[in-house]
Amino acid sequence: MRTALLIGIGAGDPTQVTVQAIEAMSAADAFFVLDKGATTGTLKGIRQEILDAYAPGARLVLVPDPPRDRDAADYVAAVDDWHDRRAAALAEAVTREVPDGGVAGFLVWGDPSLYDSTLRIVQRSPIPLQPRMIPGITSVQALTAAHAVLLNRVGEPIHITTGRRLAEDDGRNTVVMLDADCTFLRTARPDDEIYWGAYLGTEHEILLSGTVGAVGEEIARTRAAARAEHGWIMDVYLLRRPEDGEAQGG
Amino acid sequence: MRTALLIGIGAGDPTQVTVQAIEAMSAADAFFVLDKGATTGTLKGIRQEILDAYAPGARLVLVPDPPRDRDAADYVAAVDDWHDRRAAALAEAVTREVPDGGVAGFLVWGDPSLYDSTLRIVQRSPIPLQPRMIPGITSVQALTAAHAVLLNRVGEPIHITTGRRLAEDDGRNTVVMLDADCTFLRTARPDDEIYWGAYLGTEHEILLSGTVGAVGEEIARTRAAARAEHGWIMDVYLLRRPEDGEAQGG
Ligand SMILES: C[S@@+](CC[C@H](N)C(=O)[O-])C[C@H]1O[C@@H](n2cnc3c(N)ncnc32)[C@H](O)[C@@H]1O
Ligand SMILES: C[S@@+](CC[C@H](N)C(=O)[O-])C[C@H]1O[C@@H](n2cnc3c(N)ncnc32)[C@H](O)[C@@H]1O
Repeated sequence: MRTALLIGIGAGDPTQVTVQAIEAMSAADAFFVLDKGATTGTLKGIRQEILDAYAPGARLVLVPDPPRDRDAADYVAAVDDWHDRRAAALAEAVTREVPDGGVAGFLVWGDPSLYDSTLRIVQRSPIPLQPRMIPGITSVQALTAAHAVLLNRVGEPIHITTGRRLAEDDGRNTVVMLDADCTFLRTARPDDEIYWGAYLGTEHEILLSGTVGAVGEEIARTRAAARAEHGWIMDVYLLRRPEDGEAQGG
Repeated sequence: MRTALLIGIGAGDPTQVTVQAIEAMSAADAFFVLDKGATTGTLKGIRQEILDAYAPGARLVLVPDPPRDRDAADYVAAVDDWHDRRAAALAEAVTREVPDGGVAGFLVWGDPSLYDSTLRIVQRSPIPLQPRMIPGITSVQALTAAHAVLLNRVGEPIHITTGRRLAEDDGRNTVVMLDADCTFLRTARPDDEIYWGAYLGTEHEILLSGTVGAVGEEIARTRAAARAEHGWIMDVYLLRRPEDGEAQGG
């Protein structure tokens, strides 16, 4: 079993890389470059600058991107097929370059959880790869910082979407913060998936995930017990509606 | 005129601080601690750990938090009033501790643009403060990284909201990525505010903001020209509906 280490490197400014990301870089046996953007001038330069500064001498393996059908009628299916072909190409390169038990590194633009396909490709790999993710500054935050502006007014929701979906809005992925009441117990459906985390990044970190039907009550109990034990809590969760379900919350 | 430097420090793990944040810390004449959370054990410990590691010897000024009416019927008005009182307390401390032309530092939990009131307080200060923002890893990304999960499936929108607002959804703040078509020209209203950024963090960075009616066409023109000049573009924008406007995009 090998580890796939997805390291967020920020959205453009090489100094937006975190100390955690720099430390993680030294664990990789080799770095793999997947995205097409990696071959254009500025983006390639920034990646190289980051490696030169924080992981000098690191091995960089370019995985050639299979061609993609951009005019396909079924957008999702076309992307799907493309990811399968990328996964096969990646597995081949990783098997060749990283010993069993070793670490394949990926420098992911921005944050690896936001509109990025690296994790998807890693999860489709025909050889087993254990993912590990290091968060990075997103282009969303680069934007708000550059404008010195807040994402939201007091308590207002925030949407992040793509140009393609701007006209509609289906609420399939909802992140909830500042929730003292486990509100999902009232609003989510039993088959919605939930990824919950408390005291993230601290010694008290707790993680629970599953469908709301299966783990919802357990989250509420765990939350109440942890709050009582520590005298305070901070927690956040991601709710995900199943692929073919309907939109939530209007 | 003094600078208010808002530095995002990540959501719990002190190694989630960026190189940019560390460099910025050395510019502050003193750091001001505003939020109530700063006084509880773990949070205070993490802030102190970050200062000890990256800005040893830095001066830390605690601005006592005025009391807040948590049971007020009008939540927004109560928060508003509270922020005014915090702004006055802050201005008093900054005037005392930072020379004119100097820098007042703020270590902001997570990212300073996401559900945080520091910028709001700085902007209400009775003495002029020029804000500067350094992005930080949010608890949203700490969550997805800890679960090694993506925020979205291919192309799907993402909502970030609070427990209080989970049941409804009004789309007042929408971040749009992956938009090759300036889709806002079709979907936004003329009085919606837009904050647009291209090539963020790089030497080519371009920023434009204003109402869609005033700057929408200028953004489209600027985008087309920059794309032609560089051969590629990456841009992202935040759309904000006016306070009393209606929801967008259903
Ligand atoms: C006032 S908001 C501040 C958010 C912060 N600016 C950010 O970027 O994450 C506080 C909320 O953030 C979430 N939060 C912050 N840090 C967290 C952590 N380490 N673990 C879990 N949730 C956290 C919780 O939902 C909490 O109610
Ligand atoms: C495939 S997504 C990857 C997002 C990335 N994972 C992140 O966290 O920002 C690419 C989109 O991100 C946005 N983007 C990324 N970096 C950017 C930058 N430096 N300036 C402006 N937009 C950027 C653009 O909207 C672009 O279409």
